[in-house]
Amino acid sequence: MGTTKELARWLVAGAPDHLPEDVVHEARRALVNIVGCALGGARHEAVDITIDALGATFGPPDAAVLGRTERADVLHASLLNGISSHVEDFDDTLPGNYIHASSPVASALLARASATRTSGRDLVRAFVLGFEVTSRLGNATYPSHYTAGWHSTGSVGVFGAAVAIGTLLGLDEQRMVWAIGLAGTQAAGVREQFGSMGKALHPGRAAQNGYAAALLAAKGFTSGAQGIEGPRGWAPVTSAEHDLAKVTDGLGSSWELHVNTYKPFPCGIVNHPAIDACIQLHDEHGVAPDEVAALRLHVAPLVIDLCGKTDIHVGLEGKFSVVHGAAVGLVRGRAGLREYTDEAVNDPAVRAVRERATREADDPEVTEDGVRVELETTDGRVLHKRLEGSLGNLRRPLSDEQLSQKFLDQATLLLSEERAARALDLCWRIDGLEDVAELVSATVPEA
Amino acid sequence: MGTTKELARWLVAGAPDHLPEDVVHEARRALVNIVGCALGGARHEAVDITIDALGATFGPPDAAVLGRTERADVLHASLLNGISSHVEDFDDTLPGNYIHASSPVASALLARASATRTSGRDLVRAFVLGFEVTSRLGNATYPSHYTAGWHSTGSVGVFGAAVAIGTLLGLDEQRMVWAIGLAGTQAAGVREQFGSMGKALHPGRAAQNGYAAALLAAKGFTSGAQGIEGPRGWAPVTSAEHDLAKVTDGLGSSWELHVNTYKPFPCGIVNHPAIDACIQLHDEHGVAPDEVAALRLHVAPLVIDLCGKTDIHVGLEGKFSVVHGAAVGLVRGRAGLREYTDEAVNDPAVRAVRERATREADDPEVTEDGVRVELETTDGRVLHKRLEGSLGNLRRPLSDEQLSQKFLDQATLLLSEERAARALDLCWRIDGLEDVAELVSATVPEA
Repeated sequence: MGTTKELARWLVAGAPDHLPEDVVHEARRALVNIVGCALGGARHEAVDITIDALGATFGPPDAAVLGRTERADVLHASLLNGISSHVEDFDDTLPGNYIHASSPVASALLARASATRTSGRDLVRAFVLGFEVTSRLGNATYPSHYTAGWHSTGSVGVFGAAVAIGTLLGLDEQRMVWAIGLAGTQAAGVREQFGSMGKALHPGRAAQNGYAAALLAAKGFTSGAQGIEGPRGWAPVTSAEHDLAKVTDGLGSSWELHVNTYKPFPCGIVNHPAIDACIQLHDEHGVAPDEVAALRLHVAPLVIDLCGKTDIHVGLEGKFSVVHGAAVGLVRGRAGLREYTDEAVNDPAVRAVRERATREADDPEVTEDGVRVELETTDGRVLHKRLEGSLGNLRRPLSDEQLSQKFLDQATLLLSEERAARALDLCWRIDGLEDVAELVSATVPEA
Repeated sequence: MGTTKELARWLVAGAPDHLPEDVVHEARRALVNIVGCALGGARHEAVDITIDALGATFGPPDAAVLGRTERADVLHASLLNGISSHVEDFDDTLPGNYIHASSPVASALLARASATRTSGRDLVRAFVLGFEVTSRLGNATYPSHYTAGWHSTGSVGVFGAAVAIGTLLGLDEQRMVWAIGLAGTQAAGVREQFGSMGKALHPGRAAQNGYAAALLAAKGFTSGAQGIEGPRGWAPVTSAEHDLAKVTDGLGSSWELHVNTYKPFPCGIVNHPAIDACIQLHDEHGVAPDEVAALRLHVAPLVIDLCGKTDIHVGLEGKFSVVHGAAVGLVRGRAGLREYTDEAVNDPAVRAVRERATREADDPEVTEDGVRVELETTDGRVLHKRLEGSLGNLRRPLSDEQLSQKFLDQATLLLSEERAARALDLCWRIDGLEDVAELVSATVPEA
């Protein structure tokens, strides 16, 4: 019957009303993580500038914005949530397709929930479905779509936002088909933006435009019937190779949230093994910056493709630089938000080590989740560190307690400890809330 | 120095202040045509539905909407103008790349001019530059981009809207680079939407998102520096083959408006030769619908690719059906807006002839601007018509008088004859207007 129709039919009539508790718990973890990231990014200048530039066009202040005192119409609140939750590159990652699926989906849902009474149970179910669709479309088109240069968090995430909002709107099958089609024909975002604010615009627009796709479809705005699989539909146009069976096979029997991961470091995930290894070198050997003669990183080819930047001037560029990540790990013994500011990338000690660092994809035994590091000191020692499976990956996931601490580290940048703790508690209890607006309100700083 | 920077530099510092009169006159013709099309489409249900679905998110009613009494924020006014001016597929076409460049560019500019005092001279200059950039990017990526399935009116037009608005905002070179990059990373719209309302969403979103790109860039929202040509920039990601020299070579010495064309029939332009030929057969032979035994259309391959639809149920589908166009030409002797309504495509006489019509790309001598028709009658006659160069093409352009009549035919659907004539007069005098808001106001129906 075609991928789009089959998917729409499942969303409307096939998906379970009651989700398994293990799926719901992973949704809680994803929501704790993404709300925390939105709080960590809420004061980023990318958010300030967006409000400054577009605020005069905002509609009625129906919706609250995560971590901000300003209010906006639901579509612009979705945009702002999407920017803040992704701009620090601290949000969740699907290691199978490199999509950050929570940002576009949750940003739209939480904007809506702040404006229109929505139960936690309904919101979590819509989130799980939006996440599922995003990841499955990502799996079906990976690596072709991503390798071509699409930033799939935007160019796939827009579907997730559309079906999540469409689920809350109770779209019928025909209208869900249209919502999917209208999402696909707004899919956008290219990797040229990595290292600039443009990258965070992608999940913001995906949330906003996916939401709009659902609103339009609900009122009868028509779309082509094969938005995903048509000869000039989204998949053939954006992905030279794709396997659309991955979109629909086993729907409801496996859940993509189970293969989601949460970052300990706010930067491109393929940097994480090198950072982890260099923090260990820092802790074990305490080599001072001026004792570093050379820092040789042996990494997988994808690391250089995604995070090969060496000429770094602003914090956002540092997030796509494995040599910067390794340098802060070695110099500071940590890689938190403060290691990716404009100040940090221009810190003379960090810069000095970064300039002595090299990254090569010259060891076929190094995987995308591994690294081999050689640290040569000025007195002639060579220290080695080999690491496979960095903190936060599927084999070493962040615990609930670590996710809570990550949330609080970010939330307390703008909320009192008491308010931050309350917001965190509401996130963990989200599926039991009668009205999710309570949670969104709890993230708004006191005026 | 790179395409994006070179283009931005020309826009900011190289483009002439005073444009040649022949270019200005072609801009007047394009604006007469596109404002007329917006009036012809303003009452289409796609516009009604958009207002119904998204109206609750509209910002302050700063801007007037062409042909509508509702007002909106400038971004949503851009969206609505883009939908209305393209939804009937009656707008201008660049035969070299099949882009309808006026809709995304003028839709944004006229929304802005209705809200912020803008002289006609400044608006026309911004329009010419936006049109130029759109068409040049189209030329540089045609046919690869279009053949891949992109609807370039949206996926290229977004750049035109961004640079047109950026020109009015007086962006400096760096910010123009960002505006171009932010436009490119929002480029979207696929051909799966042909025949549905989704097609008209494309220039609407292009106008709206290009406008937003310029606003964001003006306030310092950063973008990758090589939005067009970067390895993961717009051109490599969306167009397997491209020749970016066509973007910048000869800027200012040739003008793309000189190769723009205006449609006599509201449908895909590659249908026009068949329609024109069948109208001639109607006028010359007066064959009744029930005397048609077979109507054989020999067309170029692109006609079947773009307009091969045969299973037609709604008016928008008819616009992408060469057999429908030929049928109304033969049955009604005309192909105006009334021949592309839901009623017209279900008219039994039209349907009967359409069902006896075939289209084949079996004659290598037939060009994309030509057709060979064989009409076989029930009494055994075979009438032949061969046509090369249909009305409205570059060799048989619509005259200024024909453009005026086309405008009035559409404008009088919602304005009195007196008001329609006044709006038309203002369009022809647009470059001399002190405040283009006067023109936009003149298109608004009396309450």
